[in-house]
Amino acid sequence: VIQRLVVVGVGLLGGSVARAARAHGLAREIVGVGRDAARLAPALADGTLDRAVTDVAGGVRDADLVVLAATVAANERLLPAVAAAVRPGTVITDVGSTKRGIVRVAERLAAARPLAFVGSHPMAGSERSGYAAARTDLFAGAAVIVTPGDASDAAAVKTVTGFWEALGARVSVLDPDVHDRVVALISHLPHLVADALVDAVVRSEPVALDFAGRGFKDTTRIAAADPRMWQEIFLANTDALASALVAFRTALADLERLVGAGDPAALEAALARIATARAGLV
Amino acid sequence: VIQRLVVVGVGLLGGSVARAARAHGLAREIVGVGRDAARLAPALADGTLDRAVTDVAGGVRDADLVVLAATVAANERLLPAVAAAVRPGTVITDVGSTKRGIVRVAERLAAARPLAFVGSHPMAGSERSGYAAARTDLFAGAAVIVTPGDASDAAAVKTVTGFWEALGARVSVLDPDVHDRVVALISHLPHLVADALVDAVVRSEPVALDFAGRGFKDTTRIAAADPRMWQEIFLANTDALASALVAFRTALADLERLVGAGDPAALEAALARIATARAGLV
Repeated sequence: VIQRLVVVGVGLLGGSVARAARAHGLAREIVGVGRDAARLAPALADGTLDRAVTDVAGGVRDADLVVLAATVAANERLLPAVAAAVRPGTVITDVGSTKRGIVRVAERLAAARPLAFVGSHPMAGSERSGYAAARTDLFAGAAVIVTPGDASDAAAVKTVTGFWEALGARVSVLDPDVHDRVVALISHLPHLVADALVDAVVRSEPVALDFAGRGFKDTTRIAAADPRMWQEIFLANTDALASALVAFRTALADLERLVGAGDPAALEAALARIATARAGLV
Repeated sequence: VIQRLVVVGVGLLGGSVARAARAHGLAREIVGVGRDAARLAPALADGTLDRAVTDVAGGVRDADLVVLAATVAANERLLPAVAAAVRPGTVITDVGSTKRGIVRVAERLAAARPLAFVGSHPMAGSERSGYAAARTDLFAGAAVIVTPGDASDAAAVKTVTGFWEALGARVSVLDPDVHDRVVALISHLPHLVADALVDAVVRSEPVALDFAGRGFKDTTRIAAADPRMWQEIFLANTDALASALVAFRTALADLERLVGAGDPAALEAALARIATARAGLV
């Protein structure tokens, strides 16, 4: 059991970490850190948090495990202050959706002083955000990618992996570079594409939105997500996203060529190959 | 009440028409027409059909309403034979997802002999197909677009509109050309884009599929749909799809430029504008 778990940023993900840790009895004390005491109040009121503080350095003191759950950019800014404030041995992780940036910050800090940081990326979320959307079961059955660097502390990797598994997640380990390529393909690219689909309709024939059915709604659901969060995600992974866009444009051009060529058998074979790949995702 | 409703093609859509008409007591007799008697057997066995026949001309004889529910291409091939076999005044519609083609066939036939045809497009479906996926409530609350041509029979438009409304659908009327542009944007384009997303991942980093979360799955769900059906849909609407692809590529390039420019405020403003448009679709 963790004596003191500190969650920095009590929104959808941080709030769900706190709620799930509480539900599973993983921590004796759960502390929430946020810039705005009023926004921490609901998590305190419903018993998810034991304490809510607005001072990061004070909040993380004497923590056993710190989970950085602000935005990607904010987590990278916060890590040096957190690393300086914790006692030796405190394990730190984050929940950001890109990993090269924060791993780089951690490696720079670790060169000066031992640091038990390992990045995490829980592949769970929602088009909603904020503590009101937090759920006790958000990580149950979800994939969590843990991204140790070359110099990561083995005990910290074990602690962080065990923590996510205790919340019900399936944990995989990936190199931070591979992680960022993977999420560019399965998360950032689909998001930008969904945005472009909505925008293409809005700009060319807005009345068409009146007839949007389940297919269009499913395909563009993520385009309703928080613009601030996604702006930061896109800008944190620009190069990997650009590579993913090259692969996407090639695939789209090949399909358009098949449609234009008017060869039913060749088009159907390509669609069948893709449908089989997609049907393999349960 | 319809004396005899004939559904040609008893798959997902045709089967749902028959089941819904039965549930709402809209027809005294429901006849299913298909090429393969064995595939009609389940709809006969469960009481959805009163008769199942494999001969189109015989099946549609003495019908009050004929619903063509085979594929787009098959409906266009079948319409002349159906028009020749029915008695005067029989109303004919279809459920195909593109409308210029079959309306053109109907107008050619109507030039020679009166024909009470009006095209329909129920915007309801599933990535599943076949009678096993048919549902009594498939059209409840669904949008159905009815596409009369310049020469369409007003009574037929009224009959077809009333039929869909009796199944619980919301009916809109669109010109066949506008209809095909609209569905290119909200149905065919998203489908081709979902296909390209899956293919981009399969071709560049297939391991990434192991980490696909809800966002990727929602965005690509329609890529699992029946390849035969979609090959026909794409090829029936090639020009409108090509125009939709131009609009999509422009929107995607604009977003990519904003990401590449690294201006957080401008990117966030574009994402916020799009998120608002998407959030407007309930």
